[in-house]
Amino acid sequence: MSLAPLQNDRFLRACLGQATDVTPIWLMRQAGRYLPEYRDTRARAGSFMGLATNVDYATEVTLQPLERFPLDAAILFSDILTVPDAMGLGLSFVHGEGPKFEHAVRDEAAVARLAVPDMDKLRYVFDAVASIRKALAGRVPLIGFSGSPWTLACYMVEGSGSKDYRHIKTLMYARPDLMHRVLQVNADAVAQYLNAQVDAGAQAVMVFDSWGGVLADGAFQAFSLAYTARVLGQLKRTGADGAVVPRIVFTKGGGLWLADMREQLACDSLGLDWTMDLGRARQVLEQPPAAARDIAPTALQGNIDPNVLFAPPEAIRAEARRVLDAFGRPHTDAAARGIGHVFNLGHGISQFTPPEHVLHLVDEVHAYSRRLRAG
Amino acid sequence: MSLAPLQNDRFLRACLGQATDVTPIWLMRQAGRYLPEYRDTRARAGSFMGLATNVDYATEVTLQPLERFPLDAAILFSDILTVPDAMGLGLSFVHGEGPKFEHAVRDEAAVARLAVPDMDKLRYVFDAVASIRKALAGRVPLIGFSGSPWTLACYMVEGSGSKDYRHIKTLMYARPDLMHRVLQVNADAVAQYLNAQVDAGAQAVMVFDSWGGVLADGAFQAFSLAYTARVLGQLKRTGADGAVVPRIVFTKGGGLWLADMREQLACDSLGLDWTMDLGRARQVLEQPPAAARDIAPTALQGNIDPNVLFAPPEAIRAEARRVLDAFGRPHTDAAARGIGHVFNLGHGISQFTPPEHVLHLVDEVHAYSRRLRAG
Repeated sequence: MSLAPLQNDRFLRACLGQATDVTPIWLMRQAGRYLPEYRDTRARAGSFMGLATNVDYATEVTLQPLERFPLDAAILFSDILTVPDAMGLGLSFVHGEGPKFEHAVRDEAAVARLAVPDMDKLRYVFDAVASIRKALAGRVPLIGFSGSPWTLACYMVEGSGSKDYRHIKTLMYARPDLMHRVLQVNADAVAQYLNAQVDAGAQAVMVFDSWGGVLADGAFQAFSLAYTARVLGQLKRTGADGAVVPRIVFTKGGGLWLADMREQLACDSLGLDWTMDLGRARQVLEQPPAAARDIAPTALQGNIDPNVLFAPPEAIRAEARRVLDAFGRPHTDAAARGIGHVFNLGHGISQFTPPEHVLHLVDEVHAYSRRLRAG
Repeated sequence: MSLAPLQNDRFLRACLGQATDVTPIWLMRQAGRYLPEYRDTRARAGSFMGLATNVDYATEVTLQPLERFPLDAAILFSDILTVPDAMGLGLSFVHGEGPKFEHAVRDEAAVARLAVPDMDKLRYVFDAVASIRKALAGRVPLIGFSGSPWTLACYMVEGSGSKDYRHIKTLMYARPDLMHRVLQVNADAVAQYLNAQVDAGAQAVMVFDSWGGVLADGAFQAFSLAYTARVLGQLKRTGADGAVVPRIVFTKGGGLWLADMREQLACDSLGLDWTMDLGRARQVLEQPPAAARDIAPTALQGNIDPNVLFAPPEAIRAEARRVLDAFGRPHTDAAARGIGHVFNLGHGISQFTPPEHVLHLVDEVHAYSRRLRAG
């Protein structure tokens, strides 16, 4: 397979703490319901999983936001629950209610049945990665992703989304042995899943710990962080072309644990939601590490509140500048590594976002961050 | 009015950083649906507001948990939305959906109509405070409460609970002038409301900033913290009997802003959810203040995950010890002030909690914290 050379490597460089001309930007859930063209494709696909499991549709919607906005990365269009679905838990989408598993994992027998799924069951995902990579033709890098072991477990044990995480926390506090077993299986499955995405052409990988922030201090480190670390420990460092594959970990609500993540995760970039000041986060990353490591976080990703996109254009631009100012002047030394910044939302974009507002955000990030570098 | 002397002042002392024999404990939402006797009273009352607006019922349910558990404080049974209801927004409770306002506040005209309500419309709350205080007969102190200006505004603008706070954040980012006006009215209303509770006999007051944690860094300080500070600036320091009335502020998801709260809030105690390590929080409070103040936080309240109560008794007790150990050995110098600790949940107790499990928590907190002090 011969692929076109990458024309825009800002995102990859920033993840690795290398200097860039402007601050790169992409948006979590950038291919999604706020785009009328996405809604059209989804209507043709018939259902969400019909969309996610069809290589052509997945390729089409992944590229849609790039046609509208000068974004600096693409992210695989897929569902966060593909791995537990491949484990045989029976994923379905109930209209207006979100995902549901037919077989929630709540007792010893159900836990004992869990195993790392045959990656062949996830072939449709890897085929989509290869197809998207080809369709991108080197415009921007492609990010692969997975839910974190803890986040997948939340859905597997709750059986659906949850407001209080009562079932999984009951399992965790009452039967930590079973909880650890679920998380071990998940971690090993996620590692295989991400490595296969890298083999198929993903140029960066991201672990979404969307529900890590619901855990108590102490429980987060034991039941989420430790298993994200276990995933990272098994990941390939380079793709088929020999290029380094940056790793990003995003923990919603994880600002308080940034120092823990920085010490324990072999990743390149840490994603933050909007509750954490980026300047304060940068200071955490700039502190000398407790121990030298091959891979340690050297970049931050985030963190504007997606609700800013409901405001008028001038307010959106002002808030974008505020986030860039919070991070501070990016380093510009081409020969050195520093702390990189990838601009993003602090959470997925809302389906109610006016698409034209996104253009103002992307434009302001590029324009203002260029001025910041000029000093 | 002559009231019985207080027999258990642990809670009030701990709020003020004074030494106590054991760590006092009470539970957010301790009078609630997890208690069968509460469900019985509510059935007799016919509806939630029928319960909250009737002095006899409110008194009855406030005292119910004290009959079961040796708790160290009682908290007024009331609804968090009484103040916006008194503003004429038309509160109702839709079965299975929670509170709804008929008139959501979303435009300039609606904001212009807002005013501090006549406190006579809230007479039923103050009557309940007086009745509960009398019924308590000095067993434990009574805490009065209100939602924070920001949290009340969330309900007023969204019109109901929300998953994404889209409407209020749109107002905040698009029309900050209107948002500030809503918050000013709310702050002044909340201050009058809490002062009237103190006049009626509340021995401590608590501000629940349940939704402060959904704000971005920067927005939290401008739109939540500043208005909680405005409330505190207007509060009476002592009750009718001349006793100091401790002030507690609880911000769900506010751990990252603890230093800001500590510098800017004229309160005695800061409540924390379970994401923050109590030892780390104690260190924040122990740092020398930037400027000397009459009232500054000298106590922490929290912070066990309420889901721990679904675990078996031995696990509940182990987690209780873990939270007490995180705070560390309490100070025991009767002549000095230090950092106090009031044990609590990090959020309201779940309606699904087995009541008998609560007894294990309360017992372990008292027993283990006594041992911690001894040794």
